[in-house]
Amino acid sequence: MAMSSSFPSLILPKGHIKDGLYCAIRDAILDGRLSAGTKLPSSRTLAEMMSISRNSVLAALDRLLDEGYLITKPSSGTYVADIIPDQLIQIQSSQLHAIQQSAQTLNINPHIASLLPDWHKQTLSCQEKKMFHVGVGCIDLFPHQLWGKLLGRAWRQSYYQLGQFHDPRGYLPLRQAICQYVQSTRGLNCNEEQILIVNGIQQAIHLVAYALLQPYDQVCLDEPGYDAALNVFRSFGVMVQPIESDDEGMKVPEIIQHYTGSKLVYTAPSHQFPLGGTLSLARRFALLDWSAQQQKWIFEDDYNSEFRYGTPPIQALQGLDQQQRVIYAGTFSKIMFPEFRLGFMVVPDALVDTFSLAKYYTDTRSSYLEQVALAAFIQDGHYARHVRKVRKACYERQQVLIAAIEHHLSDVLVVQPTDSGIHLVCWLKEHWTEQDFIVQCSQAGLAVQPLSRYCQHSHQKAAVLFGYAAHTPEEIKVSIEKLAMQIQM
Amino acid sequence: MAMSSSFPSLILPKGHIKDGLYCAIRDAILDGRLSAGTKLPSSRTLAEMMSISRNSVLAALDRLLDEGYLITKPSSGTYVADIIPDQLIQIQSSQLHAIQQSAQTLNINPHIASLLPDWHKQTLSCQEKKMFHVGVGCIDLFPHQLWGKLLGRAWRQSYYQLGQFHDPRGYLPLRQAICQYVQSTRGLNCNEEQILIVNGIQQAIHLVAYALLQPYDQVCLDEPGYDAALNVFRSFGVMVQPIESDDEGMKVPEIIQHYTGSKLVYTAPSHQFPLGGTLSLARRFALLDWSAQQQKWIFEDDYNSEFRYGTPPIQALQGLDQQQRVIYAGTFSKIMFPEFRLGFMVVPDALVDTFSLAKYYTDTRSSYLEQVALAAFIQDGHYARHVRKVRKACYERQQVLIAAIEHHLSDVLVVQPTDSGIHLVCWLKEHWTEQDFIVQCSQAGLAVQPLSRYCQHSHQKAAVLFGYAAHTPEEIKVSIEKLAMQIQM
Repeated sequence: MAMSSSFPSLILPKGHIKDGLYCAIRDAILDGRLSAGTKLPSSRTLAEMMSISRNSVLAALDRLLDEGYLITKPSSGTYVADIIPDQLIQIQSSQLHAIQQSAQTLNINPHIASLLPDWHKQTLSCQEKKMFHVGVGCIDLFPHQLWGKLLGRAWRQSYYQLGQFHDPRGYLPLRQAICQYVQSTRGLNCNEEQILIVNGIQQAIHLVAYALLQPYDQVCLDEPGYDAALNVFRSFGVMVQPIESDDEGMKVPEIIQHYTGSKLVYTAPSHQFPLGGTLSLARRFALLDWSAQQQKWIFEDDYNSEFRYGTPPIQALQGLDQQQRVIYAGTFSKIMFPEFRLGFMVVPDALVDTFSLAKYYTDTRSSYLEQVALAAFIQDGHYARHVRKVRKACYERQQVLIAAIEHHLSDVLVVQPTDSGIHLVCWLKEHWTEQDFIVQCSQAGLAVQPLSRYCQHSHQKAAVLFGYAAHTPEEIKVSIEKLAMQIQM
Repeated sequence: MAMSSSFPSLILPKGHIKDGLYCAIRDAILDGRLSAGTKLPSSRTLAEMMSISRNSVLAALDRLLDEGYLITKPSSGTYVADIIPDQLIQIQSSQLHAIQQSAQTLNINPHIASLLPDWHKQTLSCQEKKMFHVGVGCIDLFPHQLWGKLLGRAWRQSYYQLGQFHDPRGYLPLRQAICQYVQSTRGLNCNEEQILIVNGIQQAIHLVAYALLQPYDQVCLDEPGYDAALNVFRSFGVMVQPIESDDEGMKVPEIIQHYTGSKLVYTAPSHQFPLGGTLSLARRFALLDWSAQQQKWIFEDDYNSEFRYGTPPIQALQGLDQQQRVIYAGTFSKIMFPEFRLGFMVVPDALVDTFSLAKYYTDTRSSYLEQVALAAFIQDGHYARHVRKVRKACYERQQVLIAAIEHHLSDVLVVQPTDSGIHLVCWLKEHWTEQDFIVQCSQAGLAVQPLSRYCQHSHQKAAVLFGYAAHTPEEIKVSIEKLAMQIQM
């Protein structure tokens, strides 16, 4: 068998024979073991080599041909195509052409170029002064004067420390304060050496992609999921596998069965973004077990930990992890205010050096002054007090929003019940599309977001997200009335 | 009480009664003392056993039920759920050890892993409290009180803006102030749309590598050159070509002849780091010409622009560039203080979107408050005044250092003349190695840096760098005397 001498040995993942051959060949193409132009053995030979049925081989080859990994040449055979990353395939070919051209003309990284077409509309919409932006906390309740005092004190205290170069991981007293806080409120299992101060969860995601991943690595992400995480991974040329949820949360068994090539799983187990589900304990253990056995990493995005109403907060996945596979990230931007750009990571011991280095080569260290003020804010108990106040207010605002929607918009929206978070998901009734509803919202001055924004695939039912935490009950009532009138016009 | 005979004794942690019972039962389940199917005593019995209130017991049980550790069976009671995998309960420490072994075992990006071995010694040496660190400005002269006032004012003014999402490029009034300043002092050719606020030059370098480059792209860099830039490029898998200087500065003809495949040239044309040379006008034009014809990018690191003594500042390369090929970066950390993590980039029109996107997916935006204070500091003329003061003091400190070295260390060092910068390069006389000299410095409490730190190749003559700007003339004299005595011992 002459041609199979240059054909690499493929290892089939256990269980799924058909997907197995597909994955094995695709991965071999993506990691370069099978280079462009290589001729494939016949389906009969492949079936013999792999000890599977010829039908299974044909199914796998069909899929690879469909997805553009392979091409056939008439009366010659099947060959490896010039590789096109998965994410580029999802883009329409006319758009793809434009992107490739702009990447070439601009001479920039093509993975970054592929994100540019969608960039403008999304960020511009974020900057508009409208109500119900997703992801903004109760800014009006922030103890503005107190924080001003703490900043002033921090600045006076800092006089003799400004000339020193500090640890890239951040200000030690702040790391200690965070360590204590997350141990007691989130059940984390960590020490201060594992804590890194970063510029919000966004930087944590960026650092994870930068430090751990390479182009064509595979990552699993909630579907629907956090669009800014998806785009960070794409910007690094990483392939993102969307994983849906059911009533036990993210479908972990699917990851274990189908996506064995994944290097990292990104998830928000306490409050799936944006739908709000919780990952069941059985699946938590299954995910931890798999990641320990297969040396995978898990990124736990705990963006929402402080906002639970009724039930106490669920222990973080990190706290259950006995094998140090979880990289945990939390933020202060939601409890403080959006322009407060500090968050933190809790990383496994084995990754402390890796992330210190990654942070250092990204931007040296985070801004010093606000770290000093935040340490005092936490240590003096102001933070915990503020969390209680915000939690109470958020719950009230949520209830007002639900009541207003049920009163004024029951023909249009069905509220999805939730006991946590700072946004509300509402499902659109049949006669409405997301697009039509968003147009109405926009005309009423509301920055409501369509669920499709957070989807890689387009098969989700139509829904919209209202971020309610930043508005008083009165503001919420008035704006929903306004929207209802707009819709009736 | 039949069932409690098989129920293990639980130990409550001190202090936290409600969380305590939750933790005690959870831990007993996880470490196997409470096995799956075990029936729990009634809440009343548990309250008696543990001597806590029944309400506390109910709260703990609710949480354990929520999290799936317990289940209830109708008209039967509460049981330990049977979903806890046994193998997770016993962890072998050898497994954890295996995780920590090597970069490959870590499953991290190999380009990052390759930088880890040198990471520790360099960063740890940076954090030591010693004299003559390279890259620190005149911290003692910073108008501490004034800045405190501006911060306070910025915070009071910000009240109504904290809820908005701002432009990823930064605070507009600051971008306008910087635009005016660099036009008048550095001859830049730009408008405010091209300006991005970043967290120091380090982040500018990171963003350039992230947005423009891919693994195995080629970049040209000064040799010797800025080690943190070299390492950022390496961390992205980029190949770095070292380009030496002669008395006209970086050997641009060599780039044009030999490194045509390079995508970017990184250089500090006004003050080559670390040797201080200036790129000749002929070479500036040659470099600009070539980059325009070949669609290459130039990164102009203008870290040193404010520190020129005697001669007026040289116009930036960016100001000569008629074809928009230069990405310019400046910093405030040297004129302000090292922990002030703001700098800026001026990017070609064609790259404004690319870098806005890159900044957004890196860390959303830079810290807001310090941007507002800095805008006022520049607009009100404090910045220009402070630059004049610092420039005068730096020159004096440099002169004192040169005199002290020539007086006490003329057997060991030859000072390299310079009319700019905040560090001094001294060549070692023949009988000295960098290593030997650094050991002596270290013992005298000085953080002098060897030139080899900044070299990719090892053929440079031995030299060391003294960062002098942070120390008063008296401190400089005393520490050089101390070093001379140390060496004579």
